[in-house]
Amino acid sequence: MNEFDLIKKYFDWGQDIGDDCALVSVNRYQQLATTVDTLIEGVHFPADTTPQDIAYKALAVNLSDLAAMGATPLYFTLALTLPSVNEPWLEKFSQSLRVLAQQCSIHLIGGDTTKGALSITINATGILTKNQALLRSGAQAGDSIFVSNTLGDAALAWQQLQNQQNPSTALLENFNRPEPRIKLGQSLLGIANSCIDISDGLQQDLSHILTCSKVGASIDLDVLPLSAEVAKHIANTSDWCMVLAGGDDYELCFTVSEAHINKLKTVQEELGVMLTKIGVITLRSPVSQFRLTIEGLDKTCKSYQHF
Amino acid sequence: MNEFDLIKKYFDWGQDIGDDCALVSVNRYQQLATTVDTLIEGVHFPADTTPQDIAYKALAVNLSDLAAMGATPLYFTLALTLPSVNEPWLEKFSQSLRVLAQQCSIHLIGGDTTKGALSITINATGILTKNQALLRSGAQAGDSIFVSNTLGDAALAWQQLQNQQNPSTALLENFNRPEPRIKLGQSLLGIANSCIDISDGLQQDLSHILTCSKVGASIDLDVLPLSAEVAKHIANTSDWCMVLAGGDDYELCFTVSEAHINKLKTVQEELGVMLTKIGVITLRSPVSQFRLTIEGLDKTCKSYQHF
Repeated sequence: MNEFDLIKKYFDWGQDIGDDCALVSVNRYQQLATTVDTLIEGVHFPADTTPQDIAYKALAVNLSDLAAMGATPLYFTLALTLPSVNEPWLEKFSQSLRVLAQQCSIHLIGGDTTKGALSITINATGILTKNQALLRSGAQAGDSIFVSNTLGDAALAWQQLQNQQNPSTALLENFNRPEPRIKLGQSLLGIANSCIDISDGLQQDLSHILTCSKVGASIDLDVLPLSAEVAKHIANTSDWCMVLAGGDDYELCFTVSEAHINKLKTVQEELGVMLTKIGVITLRSPVSQFRLTIEGLDKTCKSYQHF
Repeated sequence: MNEFDLIKKYFDWGQDIGDDCALVSVNRYQQLATTVDTLIEGVHFPADTTPQDIAYKALAVNLSDLAAMGATPLYFTLALTLPSVNEPWLEKFSQSLRVLAQQCSIHLIGGDTTKGALSITINATGILTKNQALLRSGAQAGDSIFVSNTLGDAALAWQQLQNQQNPSTALLENFNRPEPRIKLGQSLLGIANSCIDISDGLQQDLSHILTCSKVGASIDLDVLPLSAEVAKHIANTSDWCMVLAGGDDYELCFTVSEAHINKLKTVQEELGVMLTKIGVITLRSPVSQFRLTIEGLDKTCKSYQHF
């Protein structure tokens, strides 16, 4: 049973919990977007990760969920489970957390500290104009599909770490310090029809958009944006599954109708972030069980499983 | 270093995180109250605790924080870390969580599931009329100090469990299924000057009120409300520290001025919850380092330490 089946079976009580954030109306004009993510030592980061990188990533993955909705960050809570009180560790953790929080204008408003195996749960909340949020459910046939930056870098770093290799500084930076695409998400409000952050791999996360939007998609391996290192790895191994299903990218995948493509070019220039068209949204074939066609892929990739 | 020093030193960035919940203004008339608590197997509950009891308590301790502010529950998120997917366990956990959520009209809006040692982090949010929240900082000299129900039952159950004894059903019920005092908290709005929930023991939690309110207090052991079992334990052992510092009571401790005592009697009758006056708030002596005087106690009790 994967995470999504588990949630659907045991925790979907009719409240619609299937987007990057939950939305809550708090006044006539605005909605809160709230999300929670846990990072566990040995599962989400290696045991020798620095406290600075752990703190950064714990907050960044939550900010990425806010970004995927187009929300403006407001506040977060921190539930920190520590094996013991290590003051130099805490000093570095807290400083790094504070720097990213200040950069993204999000405020720590409360928390809990407990004793146990190292684990960090952050609950982040942002704000949006009512009914403006970028949802997984808005993709339309004919939309172009875009992703930000490059894919697969974090997955390659993780594979190298597990094989006792030393990833390059650039790969490690992608793995430990994913940049939350807050400004991009905000800029996509009114432009994108749908959006998700790629935390479990492009294949699985794009499939969420297709399921929620009741559409299909065709993407093309040849145009996927890759760093030189990932391109070299693929050339040597043909391991496209690292890019499609490796996870931990925290880039945005979103769809834009023809009418808004020009606006997107302006966004790209203003933010200086690479945006690549990787395919198109299609009408879903009523007879096909495969909603996502990946041109150039001659096998199936097993998506990241939480259990 | 205790939990409070740790938070103050590393995570108090000038944002005032010292009450049962953090308060956030969301419109002209209302504030959200939000709180987070983690329960870890082996630390907060024994390994053989039923999934029903774990789910109940994980939500109840957060509802107790909402109660201590007088907030009306709105929604919560669930970050659930599981060693494996055990469907019968999940079925029981989810059902029990849902029953309490429905009883208290609080909605599950999102979550995260991860693989690791069993741990549950719930972030609960309630709503309040602006500037009406019950705070730790409002106690006034002359206020009477009250607690709800009885104290020490959960701590006695926990001690017996650790000593391989079998606690009575009543004690276990107090330990596993603390009743969140939501209606009491709401009824105290406009009546109580200050309030806290007793999660770390009366001595430590009342001391938080005294520190925040810059007052002293005198309480009397002879009038502390005890169940027959705890009274018997004390008679045999004189172990008052179990009652004062055992923790896990989740009753409310609050202070009420003379002008509102009659209203409190009405609340007690309407809700059918026992409320006991245990002492009075005093002017803080500028020369005394001890803010809390406990009449009848001939030793000091070490408060519950999270680390």
